[in-house]
Amino acid sequence: MKPLEGIKILDFTQFFAGPLCTMLLQDMGADVIKLENPPYGDGTRYSPSTRNEKSTNYTSRNRGKKSVLMNLKDERQVAIFLEMVKTADVVIENFKPGTLEKYGITYEKMKELNPAIVYTSISGYGQTGPYKSHAAFDGAVQAESGLMSITGEADGRPLRCGASIADATAGLIGAIGTLGALMGAKMTGQGRRVDVSMMDSIACILENSISSFLEGGPMQTRSGNGLWTASPFNSFECKDGQSIYLGISTDAQFAKFCGILGKEEWLEDERFATNIHRVSNKAVLEPMVEEVLKEKFTLDELCEALEKERLVFGRINDIAQLVQHPQILARNMIVNAVYPDGDTFKVPGAPIKMSDMEDETEYRTVTVGYDTIEVLSQYVDEAKVHEIYDDVIKETAAAVAKKYS
Amino acid sequence: MKPLEGIKILDFTQFFAGPLCTMLLQDMGADVIKLENPPYGDGTRYSPSTRNEKSTNYTSRNRGKKSVLMNLKDERQVAIFLEMVKTADVVIENFKPGTLEKYGITYEKMKELNPAIVYTSISGYGQTGPYKSHAAFDGAVQAESGLMSITGEADGRPLRCGASIADATAGLIGAIGTLGALMGAKMTGQGRRVDVSMMDSIACILENSISSFLEGGPMQTRSGNGLWTASPFNSFECKDGQSIYLGISTDAQFAKFCGILGKEEWLEDERFATNIHRVSNKAVLEPMVEEVLKEKFTLDELCEALEKERLVFGRINDIAQLVQHPQILARNMIVNAVYPDGDTFKVPGAPIKMSDMEDETEYRTVTVGYDTIEVLSQYVDEAKVHEIYDDVIKETAAAVAKKYS
Repeated sequence: MKPLEGIKILDFTQFFAGPLCTMLLQDMGADVIKLENPPYGDGTRYSPSTRNEKSTNYTSRNRGKKSVLMNLKDERQVAIFLEMVKTADVVIENFKPGTLEKYGITYEKMKELNPAIVYTSISGYGQTGPYKSHAAFDGAVQAESGLMSITGEADGRPLRCGASIADATAGLIGAIGTLGALMGAKMTGQGRRVDVSMMDSIACILENSISSFLEGGPMQTRSGNGLWTASPFNSFECKDGQSIYLGISTDAQFAKFCGILGKEEWLEDERFATNIHRVSNKAVLEPMVEEVLKEKFTLDELCEALEKERLVFGRINDIAQLVQHPQILARNMIVNAVYPDGDTFKVPGAPIKMSDMEDETEYRTVTVGYDTIEVLSQYVDEAKVHEIYDDVIKETAAAVAKKYS
Repeated sequence: MKPLEGIKILDFTQFFAGPLCTMLLQDMGADVIKLENPPYGDGTRYSPSTRNEKSTNYTSRNRGKKSVLMNLKDERQVAIFLEMVKTADVVIENFKPGTLEKYGITYEKMKELNPAIVYTSISGYGQTGPYKSHAAFDGAVQAESGLMSITGEADGRPLRCGASIADATAGLIGAIGTLGALMGAKMTGQGRRVDVSMMDSIACILENSISSFLEGGPMQTRSGNGLWTASPFNSFECKDGQSIYLGISTDAQFAKFCGILGKEEWLEDERFATNIHRVSNKAVLEPMVEEVLKEKFTLDELCEALEKERLVFGRINDIAQLVQHPQILARNMIVNAVYPDGDTFKVPGAPIKMSDMEDETEYRTVTVGYDTIEVLSQYVDEAKVHEIYDDVIKETAAAVAKKYS
């Protein structure tokens, strides 16, 4: 049995941060009802790669969720949503702040209908403060938050992290806040309004870059693959031209590493006596390391020696290598998402493994609005649902087909 | 009242992933008792920047936690730990897999003592699979997971994201798994064994890079600041030589953007008709955008015009600009962590904001083992605690002083 079975989530999210949040809650058993604006629904349904009027972009982060059409400009549909709130546990959205309020959907109103409701908003800059109205996507917040300023070559320009990490971090922290508030709601009967932003989330993970600078340390900038808190900690080239990522930080690790390299004399060197010394002298130490590696070790030889001493290293894989990685396959991290018409997409699996919960390897996934009639008929008379939605469903199908034509 | 008040967490974590996880649980009110191996405790206590035998590296991610010495090689100390398990809610660790088991601390034993206990492990590659014994630090997993392969200039080498994002993501997903399992435990009385890895966590956030490739899309590689799913979405230089990060993805945004640039004719251009078209032709479109920006707009002028249309952009700030950012300050994202001797460090604040929970702006923070006697005396006769620990505490103080000398 999954731990969140019985938890009902009304999910207004789209793009990445919000859908990642609700995906992980779905993985643990929550019933996630994705509410999509007709006719197109989540914009990622039309982003690359696409096949048979479906996209990998949507599927990879929305597997397992139901989809219901919900047009907030139609008061009849809003009324149904408010009916759903009465028995739901959580409402999550990642609109620009103020969007739901514009349609009369406030936390106060939801709380009146259901005092235990948890209402989580994920946004670029938060629901308060001078930037609350700023629109945001991942790259914009990677820039604004300083993350780009510490990513890149020492002599290069600021770069974004290749993954949408501002979105991802906010989505994950949004899930943590939601679950914390839900836990409180289950114990006290009182829900909460949760407010998580991409900007705060990146500040949270930049922690020591912020603290150290504010306490008089150097401002962290770009340093290629080097680390400013440990050395030797960098990517290095081997004899066969292939590169490795090496992470040596403790003194015990450094001693073993010198043994592998046949450089025990480095242990007597004052400049390398502790990690703090090695960080101060890394401009000397790291080229010395690379010189030995280029002379003595192929990548495979080095990996074998490091593995034997249980030292820390990584092969620098590409996406093609990742999807064949023995550990990824052993952990069920590539699974299927299956649409009602049988069309099947490979997507990443659940990253949370726990006892008494089998890894799911085949997720149900649906086209925009697929579950509208069935889900809403649990709240409102079915004839009424048909009356409101039959045309909307037809128009949705036509619009999607046109978008894909 | 915070939502996790009354939740007790026994925290064996060190470095970044685990401490970030328990920090966020502490933020929501959990009582986090950090168990540190004497004499040094968490290695980040000795990482830059350091002042008065304390480090920003430790403080920035451990604010608010208690610290208790726990040497697993001493059976008397292990016995006290097992006593603590009886009334705790959660045990979290990020050792190499198998470490606690080596000292007789298994999930089975904990479950016998307390069936509701949640036992979370965060590791590089997980508790199962062929790589489970591989040691890992953030950079190594950024390499191994393929994340580095998609970060960097198109013609440059693979680069790590400047923040320790493999650690961070695993710490956050570890918190989500812990809270999910805890929720289940509160409802059913049965705890869980939770297993989260850095490798799975990065695979999770690389989602569409994986799905798209497996479904026949191009393999995502490095593309500087460009996005492979939207265009124009990149950093661009302005007239005054300053750069901006622009994120235009929907067709509606593109129409507004063309209006700002005075390039309405682009809307008639077949090559730019939809986002999918613009992505296919971004090698044409994005240089055209930069040409206009370099000719017509300073950074400030452009920001003002974009803000008026509520389009998405970011200024490319450095860490010094981040810590003065009006939104960061307005959201209490820079707060104090205060040691018992009054020494105060600036650290990032809680990224989860919720109703009925004031932002904390002054956290209690302690040196290694500071709470040992007080906390353990709640479980074992105080005289017994002194008998076991008095020497350990003295040796710890001496060793820390020596390490800092």
